[in-house]
Amino acid sequence: MELSEYLADVAGDVDLAIHRYFGTPYGELAKASAHLLTAGGKRLRPAMLFLAADTVKKGAAFELMPAALAVELIHSFTLIHDDIMDQDAERRGVPTVHTLWDEPTAILAGDVLYAQAFEFLCRAPATDNARVRAVSLLARTCAEICNGQHQDMSFEDQAEVSEVEYLEMVRKKTGSLYAASASIGAILAGARPVQADALYQFGLTTGIAFQIQDDLIDLTVPSSVSGKDRGSDLREGKKTIIAIRAMEKGISLPQGPLSDDEVEKVVKNLEEAGVIADVRETAERILGTGKACLGVIPESEEKRLLVSLGDHFLERGS
Amino acid sequence: MELSEYLADVAGDVDLAIHRYFGTPYGELAKASAHLLTAGGKRLRPAMLFLAADTVKKGAAFELMPAALAVELIHSFTLIHDDIMDQDAERRGVPTVHTLWDEPTAILAGDVLYAQAFEFLCRAPATDNARVRAVSLLARTCAEICNGQHQDMSFEDQAEVSEVEYLEMVRKKTGSLYAASASIGAILAGARPVQADALYQFGLTTGIAFQIQDDLIDLTVPSSVSGKDRGSDLREGKKTIIAIRAMEKGISLPQGPLSDDEVEKVVKNLEEAGVIADVRETAERILGTGKACLGVIPESEEKRLLVSLGDHFLERGS
Repeated sequence: MELSEYLADVAGDVDLAIHRYFGTPYGELAKASAHLLTAGGKRLRPAMLFLAADTVKKGAAFELMPAALAVELIHSFTLIHDDIMDQDAERRGVPTVHTLWDEPTAILAGDVLYAQAFEFLCRAPATDNARVRAVSLLARTCAEICNGQHQDMSFEDQAEVSEVEYLEMVRKKTGSLYAASASIGAILAGARPVQADALYQFGLTTGIAFQIQDDLIDLTVPSSVSGKDRGSDLREGKKTIIAIRAMEKGISLPQGPLSDDEVEKVVKNLEEAGVIADVRETAERILGTGKACLGVIPESEEKRLLVSLGDHFLERGS
Repeated sequence: MELSEYLADVAGDVDLAIHRYFGTPYGELAKASAHLLTAGGKRLRPAMLFLAADTVKKGAAFELMPAALAVELIHSFTLIHDDIMDQDAERRGVPTVHTLWDEPTAILAGDVLYAQAFEFLCRAPATDNARVRAVSLLARTCAEICNGQHQDMSFEDQAEVSEVEYLEMVRKKTGSLYAASASIGAILAGARPVQADALYQFGLTTGIAFQIQDDLIDLTVPSSVSGKDRGSDLREGKKTIIAIRAMEKGISLPQGPLSDDEVEKVVKNLEEAGVIADVRETAERILGTGKACLGVIPESEEKRLLVSLGDHFLERGS
């Protein structure tokens, strides 16, 4: 099976399950909670969870939809709260929750999904011991995501951000939930600790690579392909790994309103200085350390798909 | 042992544990999370959890501090988020989190406590099955609290609120966490489902009684005794059970700025019409149904204290 086919299947299944549980919300708060969740998304964290489970025990993923929903709900909750904090008006082509309703409702909508994630996780068919370990890991992960988001916001007030700080922030804000998705899938499938840890590490590096690729997409991929507002990180003066590397090489990046041509010029400048290639190489190197952990996982079709999911994170253009 | 002595002991122990885990926060987000938690509080939910555990198995409470912290953390998280929604500037005699820091940090500070509550609960020494049931119950409870808070906010836009709606809101917003505290204590102590359910019901009714007494305190107890801003519900036109009952009797309550004498006059009016006594009786009746559930719990010193904790909720003046 091709990865693209597998991802489409998973997205279809997850969408169906989400539609079943959240498709007919009763009351304004339930509607606000369901809004982003039902607006689509690539469902990559569920895919990570399913594949990790299947690498541990073939067929285990089949029953783990409640756990897959749990990680997707946590993702959705963080988006709702982040959108309030960042005062973003749009996400996934629809108005954000606090824009459609109001901030109090958006805070509560996120809080409800947060709770429901733990409810779903407790419903996953697995041993009680596995479920406790999965809950504990998800809770630890949520605290890390919050810390990552806080660190990301504090970068705005920092004159300079080091690469170590950037990678630390990305590890927490983006990496940890991919790590938890893989590890929770493994734990619920009955993985030995050494396997669950290996899949955690793999998930973590895919998540970091994912964010670095996001930074690259923002700068290098035309809006028509990415579906995103090209150069927005540049205009906002975001301290991405590209900006940090550029600074190290003494390249000063323009800020504020920039035309497409001006963005293009910056990219060309960065390409000539080797910054783009360097950043890409860093992402590959990080992902490589994650792949190297997978030696404890027996070879299988699912393992091959899992590795290509990591590669896909670095190859995607949207 | 007197209840007051027991409560003082529990508060001391909980304060000590909180100080140990949250007393030396590292970083602004950790400080914001710890702010309200370390500012005091009566620690009534931990007391409920400990007593319920001990009624099921004498001495069980001794090891359940992690679970007691879990319910206290959930309480603290809801206060931080509620204060943002209600735009309150002060709580427990200290500035609220979003006032001292900012709204984004306050949202995250609450989210972090939310996660840590589940982490603590997973650490409680009990069977894995008991821990999964406890986590599941706490998660369901958090969703209920959010729904209750949303309902409470929506009352402001409702011309009329019925007593059924009011009691539904209070059950969710205040009752459910007391219910969960009692039930989680019981579950972790190894209670049979029938006992855990009975303690859930008891906790639920104490929580509802607690809130009704809060409404009564706001109106009838001088600020010097309650430590609260007397008559604030009246001034804000809050749809408390007292306001609802007054409306039913055709008594129109004044709103806006009111002197102490004017509040006193309203109280006298309500007392003469029998509203105050009626409301008090309702609270007693609700609590009575909870006490009636405790037949499945064997008699003990701890059960006596648990029942008096319920009574205390209705007798307290602050």
